[in-house]
This record gives sequence, C-alpha cells and structure tokens, in this order.
Amino acid sequence: MDFGTEFKPLTVQPQEIEGKSFEIITEELGEHSFTPEQYPIVQRIIHASADFELGRSIVFNGDAIEAGIRSIRAGRPVVADVQMIQAGVSKERLERFGGGIHVYISDPDVIEEAKRLNTTRAIISMRKAIRAAEGGIYAIGNAPTALLELIRLVKEGLAKPDLVIGMPVGFVSAAESKDELRKLDIPFITNIGRKGGSTIVVSAINAISIMAANRE
Amino acid sequence: MDFGTEFKPLTVQPQEIEGKSFEIITEELGEHSFTPEQYPIVQRIIHASADFELGRSIVFNGDAIEAGIRSIRAGRPVVADVQMIQAGVSKERLERFGGGIHVYISDPDVIEEAKRLNTTRAIISMRKAIRAAEGGIYAIGNAPTALLELIRLVKEGLAKPDLVIGMPVGFVSAAESKDELRKLDIPFITNIGRKGGSTIVVSAINAISIMAANRE
Repeated sequence: MDFGTEFKPLTVQPQEIEGKSFEIITEELGEHSFTPEQYPIVQRIIHASADFELGRSIVFNGDAIEAGIRSIRAGRPVVADVQMIQAGVSKERLERFGGGIHVYISDPDVIEEAKRLNTTRAIISMRKAIRAAEGGIYAIGNAPTALLELIRLVKEGLAKPDLVIGMPVGFVSAAESKDELRKLDIPFITNIGRKGGSTIVVSAINAISIMAANRE
Repeated sequence: MDFGTEFKPLTVQPQEIEGKSFEIITEELGEHSFTPEQYPIVQRIIHASADFELGRSIVFNGDAIEAGIRSIRAGRPVVADVQMIQAGVSKERLERFGGGIHVYISDPDVIEEAKRLNTTRAIISMRKAIRAAEGGIYAIGNAPTALLELIRLVKEGLAKPDLVIGMPVGFVSAAESKDELRKLDIPFITNIGRKGGSTIVVSAINAISIMAANRE
C-alpha cells in the first residue's frame, strides 16, 4: 500500500518528548511544597492531565510512596475499580516482582451479588478484593462507592491496604469520598475536589512502579 | 466471610447519580453556545473530567455528530490510539450494529515496522488502521503523532474517516496537533489546548453511541 509522502524518521524520540514535557511542567508549576520523593508522582499526574490545578491538589499521607514501592516489590496485587486503569498500567513492571493488577467489577459473581444486595458492582468488587488477597495497592479512579466501601472496610479492620490511591472523578460523592479518605491515618494518595479519573490514577501507579523498578 | 456492618441497600441508584450529576453540570455551566445535539457530548465530557474549562473548549466541525451516528449504525469500526480507550468504551452498543473498537499500537507488525522506520508505534498504528477498513471513527486521546499522521493521510487522500475525535493530552505537540486538525474541513470533535485524554475520548464515543442506539 502506498502511504503517500514518505515520512522522515522522527528527529524527536518519545523519551525526549517526555523529558521536554517534564521540563515544561517544572518550569510552569513554579514553587510548590511537594517533597523530592512526591514530586515525580505529581509531575506524571500533570503530564497525564495537563492540569496544574489538579496537580497542586494532590495530597500524600503517611509513608505513602515507600509503602507503595514496598508493596510492588513484594509482588502484592494492585486492585483497581475499573478496566481502564488495568489497560493503562504498565503491567510488565508489576509482573517483574510477581505482582499484577486486578479488576473485579465485571466478574459474574460480583454482578450477581450486587443485584442480590441491590447495591453497586463497585462496592462488591472491593469486598471480593479483600477476600482475594491481604494488603496490596487499592487504586480507585471512577467509583466513589468503591472508595467509600473501602474506607468502611478499613475502619472496621477488614481491609488493610498497603496504599490507597483514591481519585474518583465526578459531581456526586466523588469529592466527599476523598474527604472521608483524608480522615484516615493510613498511607494514601488522593486529591481535593471533584477531579480525578483513570488516567490520573494510572500515572500515579506507573510513577510508583518506576521507582520500585529503579531500586534494583 | 464477615464483611462487618451490614450495609443498607442504596437509596440512590447509579442512574440517579448520573442524572443528578448532569443537572449539576447544566446548572454550573450556565450559558453556552453548543447546539442541543452537541450539548449531551459536552455534558458527558464534563462529567468524565469535572472540568468546565475543558468542556467549554470543545469544538465540533461539519456534521460531526450525525456522521458519527451514521458510522456506528453502519457497523463501521472505531479506531483508537491506545488500549485505555478500548477498555472504557461501551462495546456492546457498537457490536449491536456489527461494529467494534480496534487498537493496533501493540500489534507485533506495528512494533516491528515502527522500529524499522525509526518512528512511533502510534504513527504506524494509524497506517495499519487505514489498510484495515475504509471510514470509521478515529479516536485519539493520547498520541499527538497519531493525530498528526492521520491528518497527513487525510490531506493526501489516503484516509477518509467518517469522524475524527482528536483530543490528545500533553505538553509537546498535543495542542499543535489539534490546531492542525481544526484546519481540515472534515467532521471532527476536538478541543483547544493541552488537555484531553482517554477518559474524555471515551465519554465522547459513548455519548455518540447512545445517540446511535436511541435512533432505533
């Protein structure tokens, strides 16, 4: 097949584009109060959203980043609320340590149980996750009900996540669910307000898994 | 397994949450210049991003929405640049008309060809897509190089997409690639500036597929 005008080899490679983007972000963000360990995560979140307001609203608690790195290096699972996160996360870096990423929201038993209890599949998927494994990273980018259920399970001592990345997006309960998360004294990464979403959560997980890989 | 405090059945169902969210969006957005046909798409984009600035920056050209509806109803493919879009799109509504969503960026032949030509997999995935089928909806949320290549293929008469949804996010070439798209006189949906991403593109595709399904 003829593709028309022969294109030239790229003069700028993808890695260079990422490097240039990170430079622009650092320059335009200016002063901030993130630690040198936190900043790469914020930088990737801004890279994935082009949203400095969102970047500035990121909140870290406890030894969130170290806890995340330890969890990945121990091969413990990442649990996400929606398939988009699973699709976006760099699985190779998780699998290198024996881990992986799991989403239970479309499992037949989850769908059936949600129907039976007249509740959301997102809630039941969190219940299934805590049965499947202890610890791990819980990454929520879409469903406030998943985050609220996880918070309840933590409060009742039934869930013991290594790290919670809680960034559901939306107009009903999303900001409130994150307000509730911030009241917990466990390792978490979240943001203040309505914004969030799968791409943001993916960039946070990938940032931490890069750090985990670089420890080798 | 004991899940602690028995939870109450939800008093608010997911559909009600969506309805309430749409009400809040309409109220807070206030005056705008979108047509009644365009507005549901903008509304879903704001719903997926909680970002009114992004919502206001959406641009439609030609008979973009009708072209998208026709394409889906004719069972023509949706082509996306990244797997996250494939994961997020409601496939059942596309398949109902015999269509589906395709992502070529991780295909072995695409990877090999990109290496051989020293270019990006995103570019080669667009070339593979135009070989695979005529027409269809091209949905780009991540890679400016994919959008720029698609624009080149359109200009040279090699690609004839029914609709282009062009919303790559980022700091290098993303805004510029959308500026180039806006110079074409073909049906497109895009936004002005650096923002965008997979979740935004997914909400646009889903909004159009809902319209397509409602025509029945």
